[in-house]
Amino acid sequence: MDRDNILLTPGPLTTTLRTKLAMLKDWGSWDTDFNAITAKVRQQLLDIIDGHDDYVVVPLQGSGTFSVEAAIATVLPRAGHLLVLDNGAYCKRMAKLATMMGRRTTVLSSPENESINLTRVEQAIIENPSITHIGLIHCETGAGVVNPLLAISELCKRLGVGLIVDAMSSFGALPINAKDLTFDALVSASGKCLEGVPGMGFVFIRKAILDTCEGNSHSLALDLFDQYAYMERTGQWRFTPPTHVVAALAEAIQQFIEEGGQSARLARYTENSKILLEGLGELGLKPFLKDEDIAPIIITFLAPSSANYDFKTFYNTVKAEGFLLYPGKLTDIETFRVGCIGAIGAKEMHQVVSAMALCLKQMNI
Amino acid sequence: MDRDNILLTPGPLTTTLRTKLAMLKDWGSWDTDFNAITAKVRQQLLDIIDGHDDYVVVPLQGSGTFSVEAAIATVLPRAGHLLVLDNGAYCKRMAKLATMMGRRTTVLSSPENESINLTRVEQAIIENPSITHIGLIHCETGAGVVNPLLAISELCKRLGVGLIVDAMSSFGALPINAKDLTFDALVSASGKCLEGVPGMGFVFIRKAILDTCEGNSHSLALDLFDQYAYMERTGQWRFTPPTHVVAALAEAIQQFIEEGGQSARLARYTENSKILLEGLGELGLKPFLKDEDIAPIIITFLAPSSANYDFKTFYNTVKAEGFLLYPGKLTDIETFRVGCIGAIGAKEMHQVVSAMALCLKQMNI
Ligand SMILES: Cc1ncc(COP(=O)(O)O)c(C=O)c1O
Ligand SMILES: Cc1ncc(COP(=O)(O)O)c(C=O)c1O
Repeated sequence: MDRDNILLTPGPLTTTLRTKLAMLKDWGSWDTDFNAITAKVRQQLLDIIDGHDDYVVVPLQGSGTFSVEAAIATVLPRAGHLLVLDNGAYCKRMAKLATMMGRRTTVLSSPENESINLTRVEQAIIENPSITHIGLIHCETGAGVVNPLLAISELCKRLGVGLIVDAMSSFGALPINAKDLTFDALVSASGKCLEGVPGMGFVFIRKAILDTCEGNSHSLALDLFDQYAYMERTGQWRFTPPTHVVAALAEAIQQFIEEGGQSARLARYTENSKILLEGLGELGLKPFLKDEDIAPIIITFLAPSSANYDFKTFYNTVKAEGFLLYPGKLTDIETFRVGCIGAIGAKEMHQVVSAMALCLKQMNI
Repeated sequence: MDRDNILLTPGPLTTTLRTKLAMLKDWGSWDTDFNAITAKVRQQLLDIIDGHDDYVVVPLQGSGTFSVEAAIATVLPRAGHLLVLDNGAYCKRMAKLATMMGRRTTVLSSPENESINLTRVEQAIIENPSITHIGLIHCETGAGVVNPLLAISELCKRLGVGLIVDAMSSFGALPINAKDLTFDALVSASGKCLEGVPGMGFVFIRKAILDTCEGNSHSLALDLFDQYAYMERTGQWRFTPPTHVVAALAEAIQQFIEEGGQSARLARYTENSKILLEGLGELGLKPFLKDEDIAPIIITFLAPSSANYDFKTFYNTVKAEGFLLYPGKLTDIETFRVGCIGAIGAKEMHQVVSAMALCLKQMNI
């Protein structure tokens, strides 16, 4: 009876047993065997974005937010001015952490049910010539909106401002190719679409700006320049790495490659999202976003309008059937979210649709 | 032939299979089942120091250094003045991170082969009335010196200054009891003497100062007040927790309790250190410190004086026999370190002594 629940969340995700089994070994963090794992992971992360020519990648202990904060601390000069393109909760968090570390920060607010509007961004940059960098969330996991990374990268290049991208929940699933894009920093983490376990983030930094990053950080722990320089010199992490998490990520990346890389992963997640949208559609549940803004990462559904509905009961009833949903993260409208990512496929999506059908029936909805 | 090496390092350590097996499950970080693990771990950590009356404990993602930085950021007011009692590498790191975050920091330098001298600390505080807090490393893992935590806590209390303790490598092994001691913050991590896997730290904070901590931190990710307030309100971590690391720590603490808690653990580590000191003594290897300053945590040995000695060869030869040693961390003298901590006992210590004997023979020393 004690089978693992399937996680339909934006992370931590359901991972394969093979990934978890990689944690059954203790590694010496100073030892060459472990250094080889770190080196291989860094190599493979650069492979994924085809970034060896122009980028380095720096892993960091902690959750994804630690790496977002570290990216801004390291890449944004002390005298820089960050414009955060805000269409959701993670955008607001980026603005908050930049403000807390004492960097000049401006927020361009947009509705949370639409992707970022390019014309407005261009206007804002032109009207405010002190802006040095744009902060963008690629897939705003709050509602699940995908923002136009490629177009914003081109805009930044054209207007001569830097770009810091939080690609936490999109990396590995949506296409991100360094040959098409320019950015100063791009952030993701182990426990998202690479399907590792949570506990480390990683930040791609453009080689051309690396030298300007020294001494920017207000924090030793979050200083990616220092982390990078030490790692290059020694092959080791500056401070104790989460060895088991790193080993699991190495194994997860191996499976990512075997599956066929980003395009294969996107195809699987797309199928997952289709089954979900169709299945819940038949139950009368509608997505919060317009079709063209939905990413096959996490989908926000409007809560049933029935007075019998209550998220907690719905959550617990679906959980009793073996699936963990995710609450909505919107301010005004009652929603719930269902993830399409992790080591799950059509089978699990069919099962969860059936489970939700059963639950709605039990709740008389 | 592919058996795990035994880690004789200050962390990551050798952990039990039972601890590692706890990582074979994916947890929803928002789910009540996982919240229950977090709550239990926090409860048990407070049990260990008998601290329920006067302290709270706040877990944090990342390595131990992240929690040291977070403790200072959260507890030391912006206008505070930290006096770091320096007798080794981790003291210097504490001073560095406090300086980087912009806090006034003074270093009281002491030799790295002696424990901190109380009279000098008292003098320094009296001579410098702007000092508001003392930063102390309990066991300075650099050389392995134990500093007089109890006496320094009394001194701080008497002189009316706060105390921030890095007890990274001592917590769980050396006695730390909140009924005997007063401190503002005390830091340790999952992958040390509790014998969990690395990936999270935790900080005990005195309840009486909690209210003064709001808004001190320069960093969102490292803000322990915010982490605490959110956790109290929701039972959840603010940002994705390293779920597998937390589950492993819960299992490790269970075994800590079953073993008999801190005193039993200290007894085992003490036996480990005795076997090591005696065994290597017979091989002509001498500890760097005076007997009374040595803790049964990690022991620094002077490198053999023979011209045939070279650490890398020694390390690799001992590794081929199944044991990972640790390099020295002293500036002037060639040393190596051997850990006594982790899920190891007399058997492993006898084995590593034999392995080192064999290696020295092979190296003609
Ligand atoms: C877009 C985005 N940014 C940041 C984060 C924060 O990551 P973490 O919870 O690991 O700190 C998430 C987490 O889901 C995310 O989706
Ligand atoms: C006394 C002390 N402080 C701080 C640290 C740093 O911990 P981490 O390497 O986990 O950042 C260590 C690590 O061994 C330590 O022994």
